[in-house]
Amino acid sequence: MARFEPLDPAFEARVRASFARQRAMALIGARLGAVRPGEVEIELAYREDLTQQHGFIHGGIVGMIADSASGYAAFSLMPADASVLTVEYKLNLLAPAEGSALIARGRVVRPGRTLVVAEARVAALKGGKEVEIAASLSTLMTLSGRPDAPRAGSGERWAPNPALRRGRRSR
Amino acid sequence: MARFEPLDPAFEARVRASFARQRAMALIGARLGAVRPGEVEIELAYREDLTQQHGFIHGGIVGMIADSASGYAAFSLMPADASVLTVEYKLNLLAPAEGSALIARGRVVRPGRTLVVAEARVAALKGGKEVEIAASLSTLMTLSGRPDAPRAGSGERWAPNPALRRGRRSR
Amino acid sequence: MARFEPLDPAFEARVRASFARQRAMALIGARLGAVRPGEVEIELAYREDLTQQHGFIHGGIVGMIADSASGYAAFSLMPADASVLTVEYKLNLLAPAEGSALIARGRVVRPGRTLVVAEARVAALKGGKEVEIAASLSTLMTLSGRPDAPRAGSGERWAPNPALRRGRRSR
Amino acid sequence: MARFEPLDPAFEARVRASFARQRAMALIGARLGAVRPGEVEIELAYREDLTQQHGFIHGGIVGMIADSASGYAAFSLMPADASVLTVEYKLNLLAPAEGSALIARGRVVRPGRTLVVAEARVAALKGGKEVEIAASLSTLMTLSGRPDAPRAGSGERWAPNPALRRGRRSR
Repeated sequence: MARFEPLDPAFEARVRASFARQRAMALIGARLGAVRPGEVEIELAYREDLTQQHGFIHGGIVGMIADSASGYAAFSLMPADASVLTVEYKLNLLAPAEGSALIARGRVVRPGRTLVVAEARVAALKGGKEVEIAASLSTLMTLSGRPDAPRAGSGERWAPNPALRRGRRSR
Repeated sequence: MARFEPLDPAFEARVRASFARQRAMALIGARLGAVRPGEVEIELAYREDLTQQHGFIHGGIVGMIADSASGYAAFSLMPADASVLTVEYKLNLLAPAEGSALIARGRVVRPGRTLVVAEARVAALKGGKEVEIAASLSTLMTLSGRPDAPRAGSGERWAPNPALRRGRRSR
Repeated sequence: MARFEPLDPAFEARVRASFARQRAMALIGARLGAVRPGEVEIELAYREDLTQQHGFIHGGIVGMIADSASGYAAFSLMPADASVLTVEYKLNLLAPAEGSALIARGRVVRPGRTLVVAEARVAALKGGKEVEIAASLSTLMTLSGRPDAPRAGSGERWAPNPALRRGRRSR
Repeated sequence: MARFEPLDPAFEARVRASFARQRAMALIGARLGAVRPGEVEIELAYREDLTQQHGFIHGGIVGMIADSASGYAAFSLMPADASVLTVEYKLNLLAPAEGSALIARGRVVRPGRTLVVAEARVAALKGGKEVEIAASLSTLMTLSGRPDAPRAGSGERWAPNPALRRGRRSR
């Protein structure tokens, strides 16, 4: 049972459309799994070209799917006209990322109006069983009034995060 | 001027050989730049297939190069027969990852015997200038007596981290 | 029901004795609550001398009890002759730390042999209800063969963490 | 030489007045050192009542001064009518916090309009020398139009962070 009520009833379609625009997820072969209010799963099949020097999936790629699962968990609770940005994430690698596939499960911890805190767990599928291989804790930001996708034919380009825009000159 | 004395005079060749075995770095087109004792640079040219939904390089990919730069900065100071593993990393995204290329600079903060703390800064090259787009702080682990590369022809497989091996049963 | 089996049947007495030696916990008035295998609670009554500039409990003090709860959750699963050290922690503040008391609940995420990953949630008690005000994710280290308490009358002093001992000279 | 230009010429007085209202800093005996635009120092003399179970200063107290130094480094660059709140921080403990005193040095990494990223280093003074014992990376938030101190005699109470105010109901 979902723990949160979404503001946007079409949250799932909005999450799936945004994920489909993440070219980096296609590059690594990541796919969206379940999408519930405040909870999103991302699956990644093992491929040799995703590995680090010891043949396990690269910790940075584990971070990519943990970050995206957390970001979309947050995005699922946002208003229809908002975008999501990752402020920061912290990832602990718990065990080698080996097995036939990984699954990252992001869930919202605190659905703030501007800042959303989310966590993810990543499991590896090995011999039909799940082994937890990573845990993360992230801060996401809601950008209100700035839809995730440009209007069709508008020629608009998505503009960067005003919250991080430099507030003052450095010398 | 380098701030640390390497234990292994052949540290640079060791770092470059290990990086060359990271298939995930080849997938995203990352290249090793300067390698100094305790300091490693990784460069990444912009490509459309590395982007998130707004056309910037995916935050998870920024994390990948920050993680690798920090890991190899740590590895450069380790003994010749050791491996490096990432325990955890934390990444702050400071600005959109846009521009012609990214450069991640990892440097060791604390070269402990078992645990090494490192940080990275990632800059984007935009119009001939560098803009800092990410900062990270990481914990790496030295696995002593377990060379990064298997001996040629040995058929050996690199074994996972004993420090994270489960110490006790969960129910 | 506890999720882990402790290695040391006397884990609770060991945790309580170590906590009692943490002078800093006495300074802020923190008390140990429930101690289960891999799970430890710390309670803190509101006091004006614990506040930051807006009258809420200082975020650093929230971090203190989250860190200790996580550290003792890890310690509860360690062998009788081991010490625990915090390698790092990351804390998200979710809401103002106001109310009559705080309760930090630490639980082990991954009980590795050397490194243990733990998380904590901190709740504030307000009007008889709990409000989640912080979440953390931590890395702890087992120091084997180095009991937490010096033997009585031994005059021994607890020695620092060899894992972080400098492995090489800096210039 | 300072790296940033403050928006508020009276930044130092504002930082010192706010620090003086942090009761928790008085409790542990922390004092404000140098205050420069984007850079703040906090000093803490060793006291036995600040220690953990092995006689070193508690890691959570190290986190307190790192958090405050980073928060005030951020605050020094904010407009005169703004407050600062810690969104999250991550602290690596590098060596035991022993010695006659600690000094935490916070500095701004990225002075965003809403979100500010800052880092801190904490050193211990031992035998006349500094030993780096902790490193942190933090995210702070500017609350615009909400002065840090209530107007004298106004009876006003500082109101909590609207950015973290719950945006939606949980079930």
